Amino acid sequence: MKTSNTPEKQARLDMQQARDLSQVDVAATRDFIHGGQDRWKEYASIVSVLSKDPVFDTRDRVHLVRSERYAQALKMARRIHELQDEHGWTNAQVSKAIEVTGESSSYTLHFIAFEPVMRAQASEDLLAEYDGLIEHRGIIGCYLQTELGHGSNVNALETTATYVKETGEFEINSPTFTSRKWWIGAAGKLATHGVIQAKLILPDGRDMGPHLFLIQLRSMEDHRTLPGITLGDIGPKALGAWGTTDNGFAIFDNVRIPARFMLSKFAQVTPDGHYTRPPHAKISYGGMVYIRSTLVTSIGWWIARASTIAIRYCTVRRQGNKSSSGLEHQIINYPAVYNRLLPILSRAYVFLLLGRNLNEAFATMSNNLSKGDTTMLAEMHATTSGLKVLASTAVTQDLETARRCLGGHGFSEFAGIGRMYALSLPMATYEGDNYVLDLQVVRAAVKAFKRYASAAKPDPATLSPSSRYLRLLYSTSRDDVASGEWADPHRSVNLLELRALHMVRDYVKNETDPDASAAQRVSRAVTEAFVAAQAATFIQDLPSHLPGKEVYVVKDLLTLYLLATVERGLVDLLTFNLLSPRNEDAPRELRKTIQHIELKLLPQAIGLTDAFGFTDWELNSALGVYDGSAYEALWERAQTEPLNCTDVVTGYQEYIKPVLERGRRLAVRGGAKL
Amino acid sequence: MKTSNTPEKQARLDMQQARDLSQVDVAATRDFIHGGQDRWKEYASIVSVLSKDPVFDTRDRVHLVRSERYAQALKMARRIHELQDEHGWTNAQVSKAIEVTGESSSYTLHFIAFEPVMRAQASEDLLAEYDGLIEHRGIIGCYLQTELGHGSNVNALETTATYVKETGEFEINSPTFTSRKWWIGAAGKLATHGVIQAKLILPDGRDMGPHLFLIQLRSMEDHRTLPGITLGDIGPKALGAWGTTDNGFAIFDNVRIPARFMLSKFAQVTPDGHYTRPPHAKISYGGMVYIRSTLVTSIGWWIARASTIAIRYCTVRRQGNKSSSGLEHQIINYPAVYNRLLPILSRAYVFLLLGRNLNEAFATMSNNLSKGDTTMLAEMHATTSGLKVLASTAVTQDLETARRCLGGHGFSEFAGIGRMYALSLPMATYEGDNYVLDLQVVRAAVKAFKRYASAAKPDPATLSPSSRYLRLLYSTSRDDVASGEWADPHRSVNLLELRALHMVRDYVKNETDPDASAAQRVSRAVTEAFVAAQAATFIQDLPSHLPGKEVYVVKDLLTLYLLATVERGLVDLLTFNLLSPRNEDAPRELRKTIQHIELKLLPQAIGLTDAFGFTDWELNSALGVYDGSAYEALWERAQTEPLNCTDVVTGYQEYIKPVLERGRRLAVRGGAKL
Repeated sequence: MKTSNTPEKQARLDMQQARDLSQVDVAATRDFIHGGQDRWKEYASIVSVLSKDPVFDTRDRVHLVRSERYAQALKMARRIHELQDEHGWTNAQVSKAIEVTGESSSYTLHFIAFEPVMRAQASEDLLAEYDGLIEHRGIIGCYLQTELGHGSNVNALETTATYVKETGEFEINSPTFTSRKWWIGAAGKLATHGVIQAKLILPDGRDMGPHLFLIQLRSMEDHRTLPGITLGDIGPKALGAWGTTDNGFAIFDNVRIPARFMLSKFAQVTPDGHYTRPPHAKISYGGMVYIRSTLVTSIGWWIARASTIAIRYCTVRRQGNKSSSGLEHQIINYPAVYNRLLPILSRAYVFLLLGRNLNEAFATMSNNLSKGDTTMLAEMHATTSGLKVLASTAVTQDLETARRCLGGHGFSEFAGIGRMYALSLPMATYEGDNYVLDLQVVRAAVKAFKRYASAAKPDPATLSPSSRYLRLLYSTSRDDVASGEWADPHRSVNLLELRALHMVRDYVKNETDPDASAAQRVSRAVTEAFVAAQAATFIQDLPSHLPGKEVYVVKDLLTLYLLATVERGLVDLLTFNLLSPRNEDAPRELRKTIQHIELKLLPQAIGLTDAFGFTDWELNSALGVYDGSAYEALWERAQTEPLNCTDVVTGYQEYIKPVLERGRRLAVRGGAKL
Repeated sequence: MKTSNTPEKQARLDMQQARDLSQVDVAATRDFIHGGQDRWKEYASIVSVLSKDPVFDTRDRVHLVRSERYAQALKMARRIHELQDEHGWTNAQVSKAIEVTGESSSYTLHFIAFEPVMRAQASEDLLAEYDGLIEHRGIIGCYLQTELGHGSNVNALETTATYVKETGEFEINSPTFTSRKWWIGAAGKLATHGVIQAKLILPDGRDMGPHLFLIQLRSMEDHRTLPGITLGDIGPKALGAWGTTDNGFAIFDNVRIPARFMLSKFAQVTPDGHYTRPPHAKISYGGMVYIRSTLVTSIGWWIARASTIAIRYCTVRRQGNKSSSGLEHQIINYPAVYNRLLPILSRAYVFLLLGRNLNEAFATMSNNLSKGDTTMLAEMHATTSGLKVLASTAVTQDLETARRCLGGHGFSEFAGIGRMYALSLPMATYEGDNYVLDLQVVRAAVKAFKRYASAAKPDPATLSPSSRYLRLLYSTSRDDVASGEWADPHRSVNLLELRALHMVRDYVKNETDPDASAAQRVSRAVTEAFVAAQAATFIQDLPSHLPGKEVYVVKDLLTLYLLATVERGLVDLLTFNLLSPRNEDAPRELRKTIQHIELKLLPQAIGLTDAFGFTDWELNSALGVYDGSAYEALWERAQTEPLNCTDVVTGYQEYIKPVLERGRRLAVRGGAKL
């Protein structure tokens, strides 16, 4: 290595060298991460099509106002529909293509909210009538739930759907100011139809609580809002995010819909106004469960993107004292950098693998539900609630941590991570506020604990996956303190399960008088135990998915996930005395083991991120470019800044010159010579 | 309380009731927080002037593109200069006025970077020449330090300043691609002059490392960039933040400046090219110390704003199960909400009080430095480094936590917290990357520890404030475990000091083989011990600043700060066995004490936030409005969204209609009846 290279040339050399040193079989690992070579090829072909099409070259988007960006997103969506016909894409591929554009799209609400809820809960007749239109976007739907005054607590929604026996219709009303539907994605401008949550009011005046109804919002002739309805966009979102989605408000004034528009697969009103109950009180949670289960995969990909950008840039960025080569150190080699980035990388892998399992579980549950079998619902609800909290908390932290590892340049829009951070942020509060979901996770955990603890013959085989850790309740005392080598993943899993057990037991002991953060801590412990057990099965299954060498690299990465989780849980482990040897030494041993694994993984980091398969076009990051030419990319992107069109800025004559002239006048008055 | 109120009426009632219940003397507490009634009045009068002037009604800013916002900020700055003349404002008041606008301004760089460094390091002759111009903004300055390839490590900067003996000039050059100055606030468009960091090259070719030089960038005639110089804006920042600051790049091609432009108060080049050394190697750190010391106060105000918005909205937002009143609960009463918000409120108070102390300390140091007395520099450098890390880490966390407490509506731009988050974010990486500063804090701590531990006669009186905790090194073993009541602030201070001591000692023990996050943990422990000791003195001094009742309320708030800090440090305290009683009970007792204090503070929360004295104009938040009319404000703001100008969105004909028509065609083909 010569010191005579300019830093920007050295950067490309550093990247090449890192790639040469990595022993990761990128193609094999990529197929594994994508769930098979076919899936990877399918994905790559979508990216290839989009990246060559000028409609999707939207690097100027950052310089546009929101209404221009919104129109740009509509244009991309239309083009994706043309490409669907051209390439014979499935709807799943269309969804993927929309995701790949890197911008939010109101069409997504049709796919993830409107369509699933119609499929799951509309009567067969209603579905027969609308299925084709939904399938092909002959109508575009949204899901009208939250209101200006009401979010998580659906029972408090104020919108009403009153059955009018005389005409066989429902009348939809927004009876109060705060009942206005609010935050509804696609309702402001795009959607022609929606499924609306409204309190069902029977002819005798009884309020049956929230139910779902199909409703048409806009004319199919000219897209104008239908009579009795007021629609609009609720305005910009924080951090400029989600501007390409028209989160909207909707007000209903005596809007009549036909009786068959009630989604009546599980609850019905007879023509004469009698109500029949759904078989499972929480049947309508299916939609939320679906969205939450898809979130984990989306989060996995976001963390994957951020870790790719950060690991690449930190590989080529040199800063600090000079090493023996006469060059400053690559910052990836600083403990404070790799110790932040590699656990993030490990979470990307874990969430992607978890997300795949969840999708399969949801498909099974969905199939069961359609036959009226609700046995999986409670477990899936608890699991996806906990995972949604865990993953949405992790993603914002990890994205921001990765961004900070980029140093000062990370604050440039061109770094590409801030944009993802802004997109991921609302996850913490939508689809169930995380702090509300925590309570539901705890409720399920407490119920499971009490049932198992009071069982005459507790049988571990009866425990659901999310409460498997309870089997340790009756383990012998020697098992109660996890021992063994830190590097053995089973020790971490054992510790995290013991932690969950102790925390739930302690929570139950103080159930009438919990401290103020108890629910959050218990929820996290329970979910982390679940994920740890899953990670152990991922490790076990690795040899059937990967060639020899990668097994060990990915095993190290998943082990790092476990150890980093244990480290974050140290407070609880120490509180319940679950560590041996004695306190002072155990945390240090744990942290040194983490460091040891990180140092083993460090030369593989570029390979492990290359294995995600991102193109430069997808990452849209000057710092995360594949070949390491970050400085050139940053320079080039800066030249596109509209302020640079002129040397002297607009506003100089009017706003700067008078200030300078005043200053010179006053300075002269004070004795200055110019 | 009647249940017949509409939610929006109830919200205003709830706010009124909270205000009625609060026992806080808002005026007295406000004067205390602002550092005296005069300061409060001065501040309030600036706010009053600006809020009545239409130039500062910039609520439409969110709908503008960056170049429009940039011009808007220039317009505000010009108007502030007119107002300075009108009202006889000092420059400090002008700075405050700029801050009050809520937008970043490139003029700030003149005040916080250019002016102080010129004052501190220019020769008397040079200062005599430029002082008046600087004072009155007859020139506008920036501070050119970081480069495309170089940030924290100033020794690696590549820009050169070569002394040309023949002409008595320095020649400034950007010899490489990566030496281009980058990120320089105000250098892109606004500044006429700058102070530049460049390697001083002597006529004999010796490189004397980075030194400072005054340089003119733009013509005073027409503001055009001077020959040999290339200037431009580096493009948009992440999250759309800081768009009103022209962070710029600058390239120098054989630019000559007169010899007297070298800032030569402490280092000089004689006319014949000989170099004389500065008296203290770190003398040029003074500027950084200044910026860092002001950051703590700015951060205090940001956290104050966010906690005001969040506590107000959470007071009027009702959600969840119904209470005995028939209304849903005010969300501020949920443990998961108050346990997040009240510690944030406590940090606002602590940082504001800390910031005031720091400003005083900086003034003293600055005065000493001007006399060549550098004794305070090392301590101030260590202290402000640690505080900068602590406060800049806290502010982003606290702002985001406060935002999430707002639930779904918190993600609206109109909530007003996201905007502050974006503004505060770069603090973590600018003025010294936090992870680099951690190392400097640890270095100072280790040095102090070794000195004290190896002293023949260790005298606690020799310890600087930042290492006062070291006195515990020779305490008797019984003092080694802090006991007493949790509610007693001294127990927290004692614990946090013991923690710092144990962690530094442990770090030194393993100095040759630290784990990867050791420096971060030690830095935090040391700084938190310092702040804890300061907080204890704030508590002690309260009676001299506040009337009777407020002393107890503010004492509780500061105690909460201490207890929340202890809770965050539990891992360390448990690791080093510093807690009694035995582990399992101590954390619970601590958390129950926190909850107990929080419940005591809860009725005072509105009063304690009112005491910051923010007007609705300053907060610019629909959710944080003073009278609790959050829902109406949110509705009104949404009506300003440009997408709402038309019912049918621009782009319908071209981009939506074709998708719908295609879908209907395909649906019909599949058998659908329309």
